[in-house]
Amino acid sequence: MRIVVALGGNALLHRGERPDADIQSANIERVAIAIAALAHEHDIVVTHGNGPQIGLLAVESAADPALSAPYPLDLLGAQTQGMIGSLLLRTLHNALPGRRIAALVTHTLVRADDPAFDRPTKFVGQVYPREVARKLARKRGWHIAQDTTGWRRVVPSPSPERIVETDTIHDLLGIGTLVICAGGGGIPVTADNDTGAWTGVEAVIDKDLTAALLAEDLKADFLLILTDVPNVYTDYGTPDQRPVLDATPADLRHGGFPDGSMGPKTEAAARFVERTGGLAAIGALDAAYDIVHGRSGTLIRPDMPVG
Amino acid sequence: MRIVVALGGNALLHRGERPDADIQSANIERVAIAIAALAHEHDIVVTHGNGPQIGLLAVESAADPALSAPYPLDLLGAQTQGMIGSLLLRTLHNALPGRRIAALVTHTLVRADDPAFDRPTKFVGQVYPREVARKLARKRGWHIAQDTTGWRRVVPSPSPERIVETDTIHDLLGIGTLVICAGGGGIPVTADNDTGAWTGVEAVIDKDLTAALLAEDLKADFLLILTDVPNVYTDYGTPDQRPVLDATPADLRHGGFPDGSMGPKTEAAARFVERTGGLAAIGALDAAYDIVHGRSGTLIRPDMPVG
Repeated sequence: MRIVVALGGNALLHRGERPDADIQSANIERVAIAIAALAHEHDIVVTHGNGPQIGLLAVESAADPALSAPYPLDLLGAQTQGMIGSLLLRTLHNALPGRRIAALVTHTLVRADDPAFDRPTKFVGQVYPREVARKLARKRGWHIAQDTTGWRRVVPSPSPERIVETDTIHDLLGIGTLVICAGGGGIPVTADNDTGAWTGVEAVIDKDLTAALLAEDLKADFLLILTDVPNVYTDYGTPDQRPVLDATPADLRHGGFPDGSMGPKTEAAARFVERTGGLAAIGALDAAYDIVHGRSGTLIRPDMPVG
Repeated sequence: MRIVVALGGNALLHRGERPDADIQSANIERVAIAIAALAHEHDIVVTHGNGPQIGLLAVESAADPALSAPYPLDLLGAQTQGMIGSLLLRTLHNALPGRRIAALVTHTLVRADDPAFDRPTKFVGQVYPREVARKLARKRGWHIAQDTTGWRRVVPSPSPERIVETDTIHDLLGIGTLVICAGGGGIPVTADNDTGAWTGVEAVIDKDLTAALLAEDLKADFLLILTDVPNVYTDYGTPDQRPVLDATPADLRHGGFPDGSMGPKTEAAARFVERTGGLAAIGALDAAYDIVHGRSGTLIRPDMPVG
């Protein structure tokens, strides 16, 4: 099978951990074990989030105007692709000696008139106490919003329209390469209506929605969304909480699942399954192999038999 | 022809310029014009330096220990590959609509026992007054040395032994892709003698020496080293200064050319020509097309006819 694996930001940094390089290097070992188990049997594309990493770089880049003006989010996202791509590539190399692996700097086209630019929703960076967050918002022109854990910066998250490097990724897979790409949802660019020229834009695309688009365009068989919980749940966080083992896109859309971090994951899974008739699953990083073999996670399958 | 183009750090940032993103975006337009002129006729691989960029990120990463521990140079180098790779890719796309372009996160194997680790020589980041540089050296454990313009941080620059992604770059070229890779000389990793496992190391590899190795391994016809002067000179900086139009590796090695920034360029050109019988040239960015057509720059050709 051809599997697109979408790694949550928590694969490299658990909630509350410091974004130090050695902590991320240690955490990523679990990713390598999980993906290596799949890569022995399947063609693999790995995508990843970058929320904590781009948040850190944005703070560092804005800290001292004497050094440089703050870098825009598209270039900071590009920096996280290089860093996380390198960490993933090395760790996967060590787990899969002899396998050819490539980490590709990847761009995603978004619409300049996407309404998301007027309504920032994507959390990036660390959690602040309310007053600190307010001060930073005033000082740096940030938008802030309340996460489950506290106040954080939010940035626009436009819808991914086209992944620029799809053909290259397709060809690399065709010659047996494990491809790491579309990190942080891809570096967001808009295309000029007349000339087609690309310009980077200040945004962070949702990595699960980009992964769904990538899986569709690559004609993948399976979209595997890995996170830090073993399932999608009904009545999450209540005494009636129950794991969902199996669902259709319609179940997910009408099941009353809460928004928050699971929202883009269920939406991405539903989109991929609806558009392609393929399978998707949402589950825990360490259970990746079991999820693909139907023994763990929440499987999302077509509403009606296809073909 | 297959041409490997090595861009000096000055292609994105001229000496003394602030490392702001918009300044680099503007400067890179000249790069796109120069490379696009070649790309209509030839297969192109683009490599680039990262001295100013990695220096800035290192300072920013070390500025506030409360945010994170300072990131190691290998991961900062990976960040610069993502950022500069993205800037180059967008700009080249706009100059070459329809051409397939890929920016690859690239790793270079170095020897763990390379003597360079005991003797830092590679300048990174900004120029400081002597006393500021001394303070930073004490505070951050940096090595510092005197550049032509002032005091700067120096880091180890081990010799590139093998570029990990060579086969992937070769295959991408084979399907008509313009490849941006090996930025900053490649992300330096060492391989464990027993297990072969890779580990990132605190170093910055010379990008011209990596470009020479890349050109050799890709069986390139031409290594084009672009910088901010139109030629190699004899008696550089003296009243007797003369441009060298044509030289052999032996001329370069015995011509008494000064070290400094031209040293690695002449060494890289000499190595490539000696080992492959191909041609190399050193010249000005804006003259790229003329250099390849023999109308500008310093051409380096084999000592004796080959074949």
